[in-house]
Amino acid sequence: MKRREFLNTGLLAAVTGAFAAPTILNAKSPSARKKAKNIIFMVSDGMSSGTLNMADLLLQRKEGRGSTWIDLYRQNRVKKAFMDTASANSLVTDSAAGASAWGGGKRVKNGSLNVNPDGTFNKPILQKFKEAGKAVGCVTTVPITHATPAGFSVNFKHRNMQDKIASKYLDLKFDVMMGGGLEYFDGTKRDDKKNIFEDFNQAGFQVVRDKSQMKNTIKGKPVIGVFHEDGLPYDLDLQNNAELKDKIPTLSEMTKKAIELMSSNSDGFVLQVEGGKVDWAAHANDTAALIYEQVAFDKAVAEAIKFAEGRNDTLVVITTDHGNANPGLIKSKKVDKKFETLFSAKYTNDKLLFEITKNDKPSDVIERIKHAQNIVISDSEAKEILKAYDSHEEGLYNAYNLPFEPLAQIQQNYTSVGWSGMNHSADFVELAMFGAGSEKLTPFVKNYELHNYMLQVAEVNDLALV
Amino acid sequence: MKRREFLNTGLLAAVTGAFAAPTILNAKSPSARKKAKNIIFMVSDGMSSGTLNMADLLLQRKEGRGSTWIDLYRQNRVKKAFMDTASANSLVTDSAAGASAWGGGKRVKNGSLNVNPDGTFNKPILQKFKEAGKAVGCVTTVPITHATPAGFSVNFKHRNMQDKIASKYLDLKFDVMMGGGLEYFDGTKRDDKKNIFEDFNQAGFQVVRDKSQMKNTIKGKPVIGVFHEDGLPYDLDLQNNAELKDKIPTLSEMTKKAIELMSSNSDGFVLQVEGGKVDWAAHANDTAALIYEQVAFDKAVAEAIKFAEGRNDTLVVITTDHGNANPGLIKSKKVDKKFETLFSAKYTNDKLLFEITKNDKPSDVIERIKHAQNIVISDSEAKEILKAYDSHEEGLYNAYNLPFEPLAQIQQNYTSVGWSGMNHSADFVELAMFGAGSEKLTPFVKNYELHNYMLQVAEVNDLALV
Repeated sequence: MKRREFLNTGLLAAVTGAFAAPTILNAKSPSARKKAKNIIFMVSDGMSSGTLNMADLLLQRKEGRGSTWIDLYRQNRVKKAFMDTASANSLVTDSAAGASAWGGGKRVKNGSLNVNPDGTFNKPILQKFKEAGKAVGCVTTVPITHATPAGFSVNFKHRNMQDKIASKYLDLKFDVMMGGGLEYFDGTKRDDKKNIFEDFNQAGFQVVRDKSQMKNTIKGKPVIGVFHEDGLPYDLDLQNNAELKDKIPTLSEMTKKAIELMSSNSDGFVLQVEGGKVDWAAHANDTAALIYEQVAFDKAVAEAIKFAEGRNDTLVVITTDHGNANPGLIKSKKVDKKFETLFSAKYTNDKLLFEITKNDKPSDVIERIKHAQNIVISDSEAKEILKAYDSHEEGLYNAYNLPFEPLAQIQQNYTSVGWSGMNHSADFVELAMFGAGSEKLTPFVKNYELHNYMLQVAEVNDLALV
Repeated sequence: MKRREFLNTGLLAAVTGAFAAPTILNAKSPSARKKAKNIIFMVSDGMSSGTLNMADLLLQRKEGRGSTWIDLYRQNRVKKAFMDTASANSLVTDSAAGASAWGGGKRVKNGSLNVNPDGTFNKPILQKFKEAGKAVGCVTTVPITHATPAGFSVNFKHRNMQDKIASKYLDLKFDVMMGGGLEYFDGTKRDDKKNIFEDFNQAGFQVVRDKSQMKNTIKGKPVIGVFHEDGLPYDLDLQNNAELKDKIPTLSEMTKKAIELMSSNSDGFVLQVEGGKVDWAAHANDTAALIYEQVAFDKAVAEAIKFAEGRNDTLVVITTDHGNANPGLIKSKKVDKKFETLFSAKYTNDKLLFEITKNDKPSDVIERIKHAQNIVISDSEAKEILKAYDSHEEGLYNAYNLPFEPLAQIQQNYTSVGWSGMNHSADFVELAMFGAGSEKLTPFVKNYELHNYMLQVAEVNDLALV
């Protein structure tokens, strides 16, 4: 029996048990099935339902158009489902276990990258696709060594081994890996204190460090692109800073370039695209950062759809790994007007709070917030923010102990956007599929099921045993 | 041209513009379309995505089964969509405008029941279906005169005219109307101070005031059932009080009885089922009340599916009118363990806080909360709660000014469930359809589009002009 026949009969499914009824693969006739030669897997990291909603509302009201993601629903062009995002050891996953479920086909414990509790490895999906002859890669707005791209690429016991993950990318020779994370390449945060870009150069990589270098990359040699120390700047801050905008590519620019570099490969390509700072903004309850970051992610979705539409060989998966902080536009007096405040936001809370110092005058704080976000807070609120610098707030992405929480609480009175916390949620999350292979999606999926789903629609015979 | 042909050709759609492309009706071949003789419209009022999620997680972990709603997704038995819930004057709807969008086919301003800003009326959908020969009715856990049943039934400039709505039900002679709201029937809150049950009796209604009377109702005479002063008790409090449980029917019991009474009608029936206190629990950030109320709603969903499955003439719509407070199970240390605390909850915060008085000792408060919810708060937290009685917290359903907010904040440390506020959200919400006519659902719907959708799949030619 040939491989294609074998897959189509569903025998493999029966063997692995991965698709026992009820299954996420519909029992469609083989004739209705289209092979997905290419897959673009889009992750808005840490996107609660309200994040998707508010980005669409903002675009509708500010620009008179919907978001690409929701417009795909409006135009009935995608299949839509819920995804259960739990990890092996908790109802609430982290991004490492989340990406590993997709990447390795099995749930692992929070913090792990495709390593099971017994120490065994689950083979990462981009290694499988690479072996099947496809071009593979990841682009992200956070370090390229961060949990979500790493979950598609490598096996490590803990996600924080980012210097080792950077070195592993050298061995893997994936076609395109771009994002932030300079500190894990230039030696700043490496155990060996070594600048490993030279190793990449010697191994035949194109090493790119800014937008113009990225634009000049050519097909046929692998690309490693590292554009900023840690995560890239928030899109809102980038758009309002000519120097940053000149130097650092946006997620949609990276997406476009990655597709351009990989799409001529005769056996197809698989690209992961992560809007990683959506998650960081949610951890900081940074409303303006969050919504504009989701809009930036949505532009990358538009790039992916632009490539895939009119073809019948490309699957675009659009989803998130977990909810985060469940924000929402919450009813209050003049709620619509308050929401409109966000239309003129120039800077994120991240930039704002970094620039304020605890010895500033309250009037300076008021002026800065007015300038950045068109919100005029009271004198007592300004004092509250200044005082909060002494509390040294902690948080996953709060290296400078900035008072994100009190500022968000105050802003809620002006924007009417509320938050349920500062961490991930157990919510079932949004999953959409466009193009070849999307017809098989059913309304409820567990995160790890997407691993075999992608291999099966791409007709790559290397399913995980589950 | 006969009416059925006219509908199937889609000409009506072209005339009204309601289904201009992109449309919520798929262009399926007529042969694939099944007429919905009966419609059961299920509303978990004020249900954010996290509410649906946590009820399912609770049932999985506590009872080893999923919720009926999510199991319908798991088993690929329903179509699933997002619904845009805005009202005519805000991104965030109230329940009156929400139910009016479905009920009248047009968005109205918050607070209105099928009355446009210019004073004109939109004909309520249950009046249309009644005229078409169907049996019609509503069952709810809040007053039967409340916004959601009223939005399917009547035209009033403001939802708070509940005594007049009660009187209107006398004229309408709908087949089954059951819920709470005694005060609008016995005269307590009526302008005319009149007990109008006598009028219902004289008009040929079966007036029922408790569960056994409800069970004894017979087919052929309209039923008005009013079981409690205001909203019915929360299901969690009901289940743990033998006297209440004996007297007051649950939502699923009312649903089962309503279906039994109406389903023998030869032209079919249309029933609205509202889990109204899901919304009240969200307004109070009352986690135990919320999750168990959602579970009680889910039991009513199971009753509806039990009737509809195995037939090909019944559409079940399962949805909510808007999000509320966007709760979520938020990651913290031992989050799964904390969530399990809710498995042994005996009473709601509503009952707890009503029974505590501001002169109680902190140790009494600790003991009560331990008994009710298996949570042992600290002495200082108990003092904080007692002190909060002085702040006279306000809220839509907080008649006794109980300190719901501070209790919820404290409980979050023990349950890991967080809240984004105490009011409705703008989120796009969950919409599922089962059975006849469900095949036409596309992934994104505006609330008002469901009006013509229901008429069209039932082949009742009385569409709203939109």
